[in-house]
Amino acid sequence: MPETTLNVKLLSKTNNALSVIYSATRQCYSASFSGDIFDKTLPEKSKKDISDFISGVVRRGHESPLEHVSFTFAIEGVSRALTHQLVRHRIASYSQQSQRYVKADNFAYIIPPSFQKNETIKSKFINTMNSLQNTYNELLKLLEKEGIKGENANQDARFILPQAIETKIVVTMNARELKHFFCERCCARSQWEIRALAYEMLKICKKELPEIFDSLGAKCELLKFCPEGEKSTCGKYPVRTKTI
Amino acid sequence: MPETTLNVKLLSKTNNALSVIYSATRQCYSASFSGDIFDKTLPEKSKKDISDFISGVVRRGHESPLEHVSFTFAIEGVSRALTHQLVRHRIASYSQQSQRYVKADNFAYIIPPSFQKNETIKSKFINTMNSLQNTYNELLKLLEKEGIKGENANQDARFILPQAIETKIVVTMNARELKHFFCERCCARSQWEIRALAYEMLKICKKELPEIFDSLGAKCELLKFCPEGEKSTCGKYPVRTKTI
Amino acid sequence: MPETTLNVKLLSKTNNALSVIYSATRQCYSASFSGDIFDKTLPEKSKKDISDFISGVVRRGHESPLEHVSFTFAIEGVSRALTHQLVRHRIASYSQQSQRYVKADNFAYIIPPSFQKNETIKSKFINTMNSLQNTYNELLKLLEKEGIKGENANQDARFILPQAIETKIVVTMNARELKHFFCERCCARSQWEIRALAYEMLKICKKELPEIFDSLGAKCELLKFCPEGEKSTCGKYPVRTKTI
Amino acid sequence: MPETTLNVKLLSKTNNALSVIYSATRQCYSASFSGDIFDKTLPEKSKKDISDFISGVVRRGHESPLEHVSFTFAIEGVSRALTHQLVRHRIASYSQQSQRYVKADNFAYIIPPSFQKNETIKSKFINTMNSLQNTYNELLKLLEKEGIKGENANQDARFILPQAIETKIVVTMNARELKHFFCERCCARSQWEIRALAYEMLKICKKELPEIFDSLGAKCELLKFCPEGEKSTCGKYPVRTKTI
Repeated sequence: MPETTLNVKLLSKTNNALSVIYSATRQCYSASFSGDIFDKTLPEKSKKDISDFISGVVRRGHESPLEHVSFTFAIEGVSRALTHQLVRHRIASYSQQSQRYVKADNFAYIIPPSFQKNETIKSKFINTMNSLQNTYNELLKLLEKEGIKGENANQDARFILPQAIETKIVVTMNARELKHFFCERCCARSQWEIRALAYEMLKICKKELPEIFDSLGAKCELLKFCPEGEKSTCGKYPVRTKTI
Repeated sequence: MPETTLNVKLLSKTNNALSVIYSATRQCYSASFSGDIFDKTLPEKSKKDISDFISGVVRRGHESPLEHVSFTFAIEGVSRALTHQLVRHRIASYSQQSQRYVKADNFAYIIPPSFQKNETIKSKFINTMNSLQNTYNELLKLLEKEGIKGENANQDARFILPQAIETKIVVTMNARELKHFFCERCCARSQWEIRALAYEMLKICKKELPEIFDSLGAKCELLKFCPEGEKSTCGKYPVRTKTI
Repeated sequence: MPETTLNVKLLSKTNNALSVIYSATRQCYSASFSGDIFDKTLPEKSKKDISDFISGVVRRGHESPLEHVSFTFAIEGVSRALTHQLVRHRIASYSQQSQRYVKADNFAYIIPPSFQKNETIKSKFINTMNSLQNTYNELLKLLEKEGIKGENANQDARFILPQAIETKIVVTMNARELKHFFCERCCARSQWEIRALAYEMLKICKKELPEIFDSLGAKCELLKFCPEGEKSTCGKYPVRTKTI
Repeated sequence: MPETTLNVKLLSKTNNALSVIYSATRQCYSASFSGDIFDKTLPEKSKKDISDFISGVVRRGHESPLEHVSFTFAIEGVSRALTHQLVRHRIASYSQQSQRYVKADNFAYIIPPSFQKNETIKSKFINTMNSLQNTYNELLKLLEKEGIKGENANQDARFILPQAIETKIVVTMNARELKHFFCERCCARSQWEIRALAYEMLKICKKELPEIFDSLGAKCELLKFCPEGEKSTCGKYPVRTKTI
């Protein structure tokens, strides 16, 4: 199978997200019932007023109302190198394609951009992928002769599969965790592949809920300085130590 | 303010919940992309087929796809005794009315059903509530003379407020945590007030997503036995020790 | 029972905490095995070198190694008003005294400091506590006449118990969550009772693991500015908006 | 580098684990202070009495006191195929060797047992590993000519590295999560490599805290039946559907 590239599709999200966050935030400070606040939110308040109110609260550190809203993404065209990093974000839910139950007899792979620029490197990489595909298929046949097949064969033959191999995954994160995910993974220091995924998810979030996500991105965009140190900074913002 | 009673309103939920759970579950075992599985789910599959598939997977212990779907409830007419139990469920998000920012100068309260049946007990309870309201109001005035007012006064005067006092809260839980919440809190052993809340939330979930929630409830309804022990059982199912 | 006051006792902690954090941090960047790094940490490195290394890593945002170390505190002499706030910290473990299983027939209570300064307020408060104790005991007797006793009686009579009532709780938090807890709860904006608890826990942590905790405290101590806004600041640091 | 095999070392654990769990459990039902219960636990109670008390409570579903006790393991000789599964357990803390910061210029690998039994398969696998090592080293050199080196080169060259490659990781889990981990991963259905790790961790836990861990293992050992279905069962226990 040829190389493949990132594809992100928004599967679902929380209905009426802006009103949910607004009425949950207001509930903390109000004698009224969030159920009533919710009903009056959009008829009585402009989206800008709602957004300004939420931004102010979040800036003072009250982020928990963002948790009431979630986004579910279907993701394909990413490597196992990426998903091993992705699933380290623990405040999230994942359903990932299994290398045990799904045979990789025609696997796709992700080519790093640095390989794309040099024909020698690129063809060495593609040859390696093709060679691994052949070896994988041979291993399955050899294991079958030993009486090992199906998922038992897949899960052992997978040991030769490369980190570059494509995987597919469904991810659900709430808006507070998405804010944190973008802070970390939109940073130029982040590995290029997960950074590309983060920007794609951010683009979708901005379209769906601009009142919350338009101001979000890498942590430097919020901090107005770079906490990564002189050796590591991309130079967009002045370097300073992160203090919290 | 008079007594008050439980009121639960569904604020929001994940769109297309059944298709989301189905396509996320299928992604684990399929070479196809969940984004494509999602699009074909409802045109090609009956709700019953989808539900049967999901039930089978959940029964074999694969509960994580349920996490992709969340419900947000606006809740009022519950006591602080209830919410102190509720917020112990850590895999959930909460926005609760503050006793610091919201003055309790006309507080409502919840009367336990056992008090309702006996006039002596009921009037003793209501008298106590009225007396606490008066003392609270007096304390606010006395504190104001000391130069303490607003949230600083509220947060100290609250120390005499009863556990019965009404609070309002917004709660978001995903379907996996809701399953667990119902197992624990629909049990006859659960305190009556949080049990009433659990049944109200379950009723809403069954209406919104019957394919997932119709089979859920107290843990005995799933286990077909009672793990609470001879001394504590309600008698609906035979007693047996829980083993996992 | 008379008034009571805060008492915090360290029940337990992770052994060799400094070496654990150091070797876990190093594992991320090293070809060596953390098990071997661990054995060599204290013989080969000074506590100051270890501490400097960890501080540098944490300042650049790599906080996760702090999670490998936990502290367990036994806490008494705190109000239910406090614990309802405390248990909102979800990345922690709690075992709390139950008002259902433990009869409150001689309850202790916490008196807010603002009440201590004014004899009228203080005696009004203590009279209310004594009156609630009497009513609670009467309710238990009246319920018993109705055939309701033990935990069923306790859990209903508790509805009149005040927020000031003493509770006891065991809390386990890892060092990363403790850092966050101190940032939030050592702040002058935090409610006085949970702030006193936070400082007591911080004192213990500094004694046990100064290399990690000596630099921690309210978020302003790390930020060197106050993100709480002009209206709310305590004035220790200049006000600025928090940006992340 | 040659093949390598699993090595697990206990880095640290919570001090006085049995007394911590016992006093935390008792705190829920007792008017006494856990700090005092803790001091009296071992002088006044036999380890068997303590263990019986805890077991009874856990069997009735009260698992949360187990959370107060944690174990930290240093693990080496495991594949990236294993750790990608391992880190899906979200109630745990991880510090893993990075393929970006640690150059894989002499990588070790794990050979599946099914490959060990057949010389053709084994040598095909080892040849593939050697070939991938050579290609990795060549890619680093080619990238260096392009001006890409250090972590930027490592993180791209890693795309050809196999799932079999060895990684090292530090893992902290509390006893409740360990119980769950053993239920899932000691099962014969679990992939052989993570199952071997689970049994090694269980062996250590049994040695350190037999009063809690001696009764733990795969879920069937607790359930006394197999919930995996007729097609998947290992046959040790009769098949039955899991109901909760």
